[in-house]
This record gives sequence, C-alpha cells and structure tokens, in this order.
Amino acid sequence: MNTIQSNSYPIFFENTIGELSKFVREGDYSRFFILTDENTAIHCLPVLQVEFAGYDNFDIIEINAGEESKDIDFCIGIWKMLIDFGADRKSLLINLGGGVISDLGGFAASTFKRGIDFVHVPTTLLSQVDASVGGKTGIDIDRIKNIIGTFTQPKAVFINNDFLTSLPARQILSGTAEMLKHGLIMDAAYWAALKNSDLSAPSVDLIYRSVEIKNKVVMEDPTEKGIRKALNFGHTIGHAVETNSLLNDEDPLTHGEAIAIGMICEAYLAHKKTGLSSDDLAEIVAVFTGLYPKYDLSKTDYAELCKIMLKDKKNQNGNINCTLLNKIGECNLDNICSEAELYESLAFYAEL
Amino acid sequence: MNTIQSNSYPIFFENTIGELSKFVREGDYSRFFILTDENTAIHCLPVLQVEFAGYDNFDIIEINAGEESKDIDFCIGIWKMLIDFGADRKSLLINLGGGVISDLGGFAASTFKRGIDFVHVPTTLLSQVDASVGGKTGIDIDRIKNIIGTFTQPKAVFINNDFLTSLPARQILSGTAEMLKHGLIMDAAYWAALKNSDLSAPSVDLIYRSVEIKNKVVMEDPTEKGIRKALNFGHTIGHAVETNSLLNDEDPLTHGEAIAIGMICEAYLAHKKTGLSSDDLAEIVAVFTGLYPKYDLSKTDYAELCKIMLKDKKNQNGNINCTLLNKIGECNLDNICSEAELYESLAFYAEL
Repeated sequence: MNTIQSNSYPIFFENTIGELSKFVREGDYSRFFILTDENTAIHCLPVLQVEFAGYDNFDIIEINAGEESKDIDFCIGIWKMLIDFGADRKSLLINLGGGVISDLGGFAASTFKRGIDFVHVPTTLLSQVDASVGGKTGIDIDRIKNIIGTFTQPKAVFINNDFLTSLPARQILSGTAEMLKHGLIMDAAYWAALKNSDLSAPSVDLIYRSVEIKNKVVMEDPTEKGIRKALNFGHTIGHAVETNSLLNDEDPLTHGEAIAIGMICEAYLAHKKTGLSSDDLAEIVAVFTGLYPKYDLSKTDYAELCKIMLKDKKNQNGNINCTLLNKIGECNLDNICSEAELYESLAFYAEL
Repeated sequence: MNTIQSNSYPIFFENTIGELSKFVREGDYSRFFILTDENTAIHCLPVLQVEFAGYDNFDIIEINAGEESKDIDFCIGIWKMLIDFGADRKSLLINLGGGVISDLGGFAASTFKRGIDFVHVPTTLLSQVDASVGGKTGIDIDRIKNIIGTFTQPKAVFINNDFLTSLPARQILSGTAEMLKHGLIMDAAYWAALKNSDLSAPSVDLIYRSVEIKNKVVMEDPTEKGIRKALNFGHTIGHAVETNSLLNDEDPLTHGEAIAIGMICEAYLAHKKTGLSSDDLAEIVAVFTGLYPKYDLSKTDYAELCKIMLKDKKNQNGNINCTLLNKIGECNLDNICSEAELYESLAFYAEL
C-alpha cells in the first residue's frame, strides 16, 4: 500500500506532507494558496506552515467551518481573495479540510480564470473516503446541495491518517457510513471486514480499500452516466433527510448519520424491488442501528422529503431514481420509486 | 459553404432555425430554456417562438441587455430560475443573443447540476465570429471581464445571418474588428479581402471564413496553452481600454472599438519588437482609423490601464504578455512587454 493512480492524478497514503511539499516544489507554481476552515486552521494548518516555512509565495484563505460555507457567497469571497492576492493561471489551490473545503475549493479553482490547479488534503474520514476522490466539485444554492458544480479532477490527493486523530468520534462515524456503503455496493468481503472492526478508528488499510473501490468506480465513469450511480446507494433518501435536518434541527444530522438512514430505507426498497434477502436486510439494519443513534423520523413530513428528492440532480423527467442492492456486495442501478414506496420505506425506518 | 465541424459540435450557417428545431427534437430533452435579453426578445425570439409553438416543455429566461448582466448576480438569477422551472440533467439551454448571453448562459449551463447541454444562437456579428465558437464561457466579477468561467463546448452553434439586419451599424463594426484580427494573425489574403469590402454589412462568405479561422485555432488548442493565444492580438491593451471605458465613460466603447485601439497599439509594439514593417503598421493604422472614430486616450491614466492589464488572465508571474505580429497574416506569441513599452504604444495611438 502506497499510492493509488486515478485517471490523471495520484492519491498518496504515505509520507503525505513530504509528497505535498515535493508536488508544490516540482509544480513550479507562481503562487499557492491554502484554503482552510477554523477547525483545520488549528489542527492541521500548522503542519503545512512548518513544511512551507521557506516559501514566500503563498497565502492562507480561511472560511467558517460547516455546510453553510458551501454557499455561492463564500465562493465569491474566495474568488475575490484570489484576485486580490494576485493569483494567476499558474497558481495552485491546496484544499485543506473536509468535504466542504474540497467541494467548494475545487469549484472555486475549477472556474477561476477558467481553471487553475488544485489538490486536496482531506482532513476528515468522510472526505478521505468520499469527497476527495472522483473529481466532483460543488456548491449549494438555497441549501440545495451541490446544485452548482463541475467535474474537474484534482492534480493530486494526499490522505494523511494523522489528521484523523483530532476528529471527534461522531465525525469519524460520519465517514464510516460511506465505507460501509462501498462494501454494500461492491465488495461483500470488505463489508464483512468492516463489520468486524473497530469502526471508531478505522485502519489505514480499510481506508485504502474504500478509496480503491471509489476510485475504480469513478475512473470507469467520471461524469456519472452509468456505474458511478452505484455510489448513490442510500443517497436519494439520505440527502433529503440530511437537507431537511439541516433546515429544521438545532443539532443537524451528519452526512453519515443521514445516509445511514437512507441506506436502511433503500435496503428496504431493495428487499421489496430488487431481491435483497430478508437476512441481508436484517444484517444491514443491525449494523447501522448499532452504529448510529435512532433519529426520530416520525415527526418529519414525508411529502416534504419527497419534494426535496424531486430536486435531486439524479432525477430525470420528474421521476425519483434510486440505486438499490441485489444482495450485500452487489448494486442495482436506476430504480424508479413511487412516492408510495418511498413513504413505506421511511415508515419502515421510523418504526424500527 | 454549409456547416463547419468543430471538435465535437457542428456550426450551422444555412437553414439555421430549421436545424435548431431538428436538434431540439432529436435531442429528446426533458425541458428546454431560451436565454434572451431585452433586445433579442424583440428582434429574434419571435422567430423561435413560432418554430417551437407546438412544444409545451420550454420556458424563456430574459435578462437585461449589456455587459453589466454578465455579473455573478445575474448568473445566480439564471441558476435559481432553472431550479424553479424544474430543469434536470437532460435539459437544454439555448443562448439567444450576443456575447454576454453566450458567455453567461454557457457558464450557467456548464455548472448547473455539474453541466447541462447548451447551444448558441448568436445574434450579433461579434458573437457570430467570436464568442460563440471556441468553448469559452465566462462571467465578470467586480467588472473584471471573464475572470470566472469554464472551457465547455456547446452542443451546436446556429449562425443566422438574418438576425444581423436588426443590428445598428456600430454593433456590426464591433464584430468587424474581430474579423480583421483573424486576417491579421493568420491570413493576409482574408485581410486584403476584408479591407476591400463593405464592412458595414459583411457577407456570409466573409463571416464563414472568420469562423473557419477561429475554429481551426481553437480546435488545435482548446484550453489556450499555445496557438490559441494568437486570438489575443490586440486584446491585452484592448481589454484594458474597454474595461476602463466601461468604468468611466458615459457612452462606453464597444468591444470592437476597444480592440481596434488595442490592435493599433500592439501593431506598434510589433513594429518595435517582432519585425512588423513600417508599411504594414501604416496599413493597419489606416484601416482601423478609417473604420472607427478616434478615442481620446490622452485623458486616460496609463498607469491605471497597466494595472488592469496586470489582472489579465493571460499573464503569469506578474509580467504583461502580448500576442504581436511578424507581418500582416502572421502572429508572434508570448511577448513580454514592459510598462515603458506599453506607455509608448498608448502614446503612439494618442498622437495619431
């Protein structure tokens, strides 16, 4: 285990700060910029500042932590700072943070002067196994997640396990949900291995395998015309639950908590529609309910959730489209689900 | 003469409304949207409304005419309307208008849900010979032109000569400047043909040849790493003069008027630096001063113009980079020009 080669860029797992430093040195950039948030500024940025102490051609752009920062207004703020700092086409943006930083920074860089280089240094488990690989950038408008974005590949990704030690347990578990998804859609043995490990502190080997699965899928289908939809398992319902929670809850669900709910609901739909066995369904329910606190969905307006689902990018012609499972380790793409079916699956979760 | 094939899309010159209609029909789009401005809504939109009278799955998005509409705020407005109108990934945006519409609409479409299809129906001479071909999209921030954008190809371009009849003479001449540039950088015979024609109403054949030249250049170099820089002749200084005029003049220069000034200044630099003969310089000056009213550059702050040039996307490492000419019909890329040289070239124009 060392480096994964994606379409056009390497994903480093070892000596990542040294590799980043080498990348910047050899890239001959006119200037570089580190995009960070108030959390990574404390826990991760100092490591980079030590590494780049000898450079005088970089600036730091710090934003607030949290999904609210993925709004277009923050993006405009980043563009204006790049202008003020004199960024040119030979500049580099280093996205140091979680999914918000990589999605937002990736979008800002991919559109600044029609595209400057960017790399990701993901600092959360979720962004290491999900957002940092695959070339999707995105921002929210009116809280509709990733409604605006591009498909643009980073020039490199640096996955540093040390950064995870500063994360609260709840943030680790948010990433674990995506790792479990990788097993469910594609690799039953990996699912089994995850189930039997300490998921509050996943090993580098397990993270590596998740990145390997995600990378394989996105390399086959970079712009989501086919197999990449596999990664949407749990996300049609999960995204809606997440958006709704963000709008209404004082302490909103994490991404992982929301898609864990989505995976339970969509596993139920898979049991109804694509042949997922009762045993597999029971196993999936047991794993997710064991890892994540029960969320009181009964108070949620199902019609409102369906309205959010209808705005999902994955839909066409006004139909709600789900990726389901045939069995643990094997996905089933493009299942149109009726509102009645979606309500039933939400009720299934609510009544657990 | 009929159709030019670009990288991945056709450029139609004949029966363009019929071809557009066929394109929409065969594209099997869930919905389509026509982006128009207050001028094209009067002069061009009715033709499309007649053509699409039988469709019930389209909406019209109208914006104000003028460069001010290329701001990010208008782009956000378009994104929100696409959301409200229920646009999905299988939707199409038809950009009906000049360069502002194609640049802005192209950017909005290329980033909406990470990219939906768009086509251009350019309605000004300038946009027919310039903005609609080449796959550059862009918006302005703080009046810095095209500072944000993508390289994204349209799915087709429909060049309808009939739309030009509604244009004021000054708008026609704005496009003529780009046609003359195509001759200067690449085709001395075309320059000579243009010089000897009635440039207040260029023939379809002449327009076709301009599109052919531009298309050849951008196909070789879609992301402006090399030969595409040829198209920047006159634009380093011209863009700065245009921006400055937009900020300060009650009746600002058109794009063509500004780059005509830029081409005179840069022809002067070419005479100084890359061997353009005195005769060629005199001919270039004569043609442009014959076509465009003299602009009083003497009141303009040259230092301010250089400051604008330094923010130009074309620069790297803080140097101002110009495309110059060896002779009429042959360009010379990547010439770094000092502030003193730029001042001298501006004074050359001012003293004409």
